Amino acid sequence: MLVNTSVIYAKIPTEYPLPGEHLIVKRDDHFQPTLNDGDILLRNLCISLDPYMRGRMRAADIPSYVPAFELNKPLETRTVSEVIESKNPAFPVGSIVVGLADFSQYAVVRKDKVANLRILPNARDERIPLSAWVGVLGGPGLTSYASLKAIGKPKAGETIFISAAAGAVGQLVGQLAKLQGLRVIGSAGSDDKVAYLKTIGFDYAFNYKTSKTLDELHKAAPNGIDIYFENVGGETLDAVLTVMNTHGRIIACGMISQYNTTEKYGVKNLLQVITKRLTMQGFNQAEFAKDYFEDFQRDITDLLINKKIVYRVTEVKGIEAGPDALYGMLKHGSNTGKLVVHVADL
Amino acid sequence: MLVNTSVIYAKIPTEYPLPGEHLIVKRDDHFQPTLNDGDILLRNLCISLDPYMRGRMRAADIPSYVPAFELNKPLETRTVSEVIESKNPAFPVGSIVVGLADFSQYAVVRKDKVANLRILPNARDERIPLSAWVGVLGGPGLTSYASLKAIGKPKAGETIFISAAAGAVGQLVGQLAKLQGLRVIGSAGSDDKVAYLKTIGFDYAFNYKTSKTLDELHKAAPNGIDIYFENVGGETLDAVLTVMNTHGRIIACGMISQYNTTEKYGVKNLLQVITKRLTMQGFNQAEFAKDYFEDFQRDITDLLINKKIVYRVTEVKGIEAGPDALYGMLKHGSNTGKLVVHVADL
Repeated sequence: MLVNTSVIYAKIPTEYPLPGEHLIVKRDDHFQPTLNDGDILLRNLCISLDPYMRGRMRAADIPSYVPAFELNKPLETRTVSEVIESKNPAFPVGSIVVGLADFSQYAVVRKDKVANLRILPNARDERIPLSAWVGVLGGPGLTSYASLKAIGKPKAGETIFISAAAGAVGQLVGQLAKLQGLRVIGSAGSDDKVAYLKTIGFDYAFNYKTSKTLDELHKAAPNGIDIYFENVGGETLDAVLTVMNTHGRIIACGMISQYNTTEKYGVKNLLQVITKRLTMQGFNQAEFAKDYFEDFQRDITDLLINKKIVYRVTEVKGIEAGPDALYGMLKHGSNTGKLVVHVADL
Repeated sequence: MLVNTSVIYAKIPTEYPLPGEHLIVKRDDHFQPTLNDGDILLRNLCISLDPYMRGRMRAADIPSYVPAFELNKPLETRTVSEVIESKNPAFPVGSIVVGLADFSQYAVVRKDKVANLRILPNARDERIPLSAWVGVLGGPGLTSYASLKAIGKPKAGETIFISAAAGAVGQLVGQLAKLQGLRVIGSAGSDDKVAYLKTIGFDYAFNYKTSKTLDELHKAAPNGIDIYFENVGGETLDAVLTVMNTHGRIIACGMISQYNTTEKYGVKNLLQVITKRLTMQGFNQAEFAKDYFEDFQRDITDLLINKKIVYRVTEVKGIEAGPDALYGMLKHGSNTGKLVVHVADL
């Protein structure tokens, strides 16, 4: 019998998901799951918190690229976990896996869901922190690597602007673009984040909360912007549209400014898509996996181990810290870099 | 000595270009141009009026894909014309050409601009009206043909929605899509235009002025829209975004609702680009010419001569009618199909 603490999705939020109202911590003192053939039991070590999770907090009948969370169950999220009980020969006890599981200390993954998990043969390589498997070598990493290639089509000498540049995705996009010879500009929501961007090679970085994005872009990119890596949407997008260059590409990764509000911002400058022949494209990193995953794992592992890139992670401790951390990320951008919950040591 | 009437670009409009204020008809009773080596003199037969011309009525320092018109000179537009004097062996007297020239009865094209003209070997083929060379076999035709292929990537069984569907571009896009096995939906601004769309094979057509676009789309496309051919922008785009299917393509051809106003509409539903992984792409038909022009001329000539497609033209008579016709198109959509000025017979 185990003690198992979880974060339960208790109510659909209309704006921000509030700890204690929409997201509730629940402790089960008598957790004693029964495994059937093909099922496994995980001890979660590291849990990923990502902005896209807000999109899963919606009515189940609204379609999107990921299904809505189920009410009154634990949130589902990416985890790095140890298999501690197994009725599935493909996942022996002691394996370290990454994939979708409950936001809990312990999580059963049923036979029909184990395909969402992948064994990590290098998980015990001490040069790679466990959190990397949900960060720079996980979803945010593949997002950055593949979308920059497939949609951004970067060419040396071009200029890229990245919003939310100190986040899980932005920081990697910026470093990859820099390695490819681009001029790299980033915005972030605190002076600390801006300072971080400068240490990792951004040519220009600014705090969008204390300056005007359009003014900064005029200063930073007097010759315009060729690629916009879009993480925030709304007013920022409107400003960027006016300084895009002809044939510019907008990698539509996220629009965090529009996730937690019922008052959507109206983007006024879309005529620029016509006059400048821009391309704006949304994507789902999972769809890139087939074409890019292998190259991505090889290239990024290599860059990481050889210290050609760095990757900042903000770690909070314990399941109980989950709701506040998620709220803080969405509301205040309180994390620098990738946000994870450290649940247990390996 | 010739009498030459022109439409002069007299003032930059902030909203609609008003006949008599921004666009002025001017008559020159003593037109006696001097041709230098390489120059030619044209007698214009048919002049094209297109929505994109509004975009050229701007301050010269605002960049766009076509240069601003020069103030106090005739508008520049596409014409079908006869060469009546020539100091250029590539353009012998009697040739019929299509290309950019002054909005006048007679127009000199200087040596450095003749590259904008192309001789029409089939211009005297009676099965093809002269206006076709600025319409279905000209810019609007190439626009329709190439953007549908290159950006729309249509597949049989998909659904396309076309706004301003009874215009110079929309009517051809709809017929080409239909020939490729798509379900074709169109909107237009009068009951007459809607009736026309139904006669040319549209599966569903509605008058956006007397019904709600979103309601109509729900009825017309209960399974959603795969391709949106965008001619109008603004509120229509906002509605369409909500009914696009996953991986939908938005062919951003024009946004006529946004050309003549300083009060830009704010598009609120761009988050759909992320959640549905949409692609929205602007383009310039001239850039498609290299890859598509030959196929386009062959295919469309064939369809036209074999009466597999029809192409409606609204013709007004005489240079003097130009300003009102252009204003009427932009303000009221008063043309059905391609709008041209008939200047003279061949």
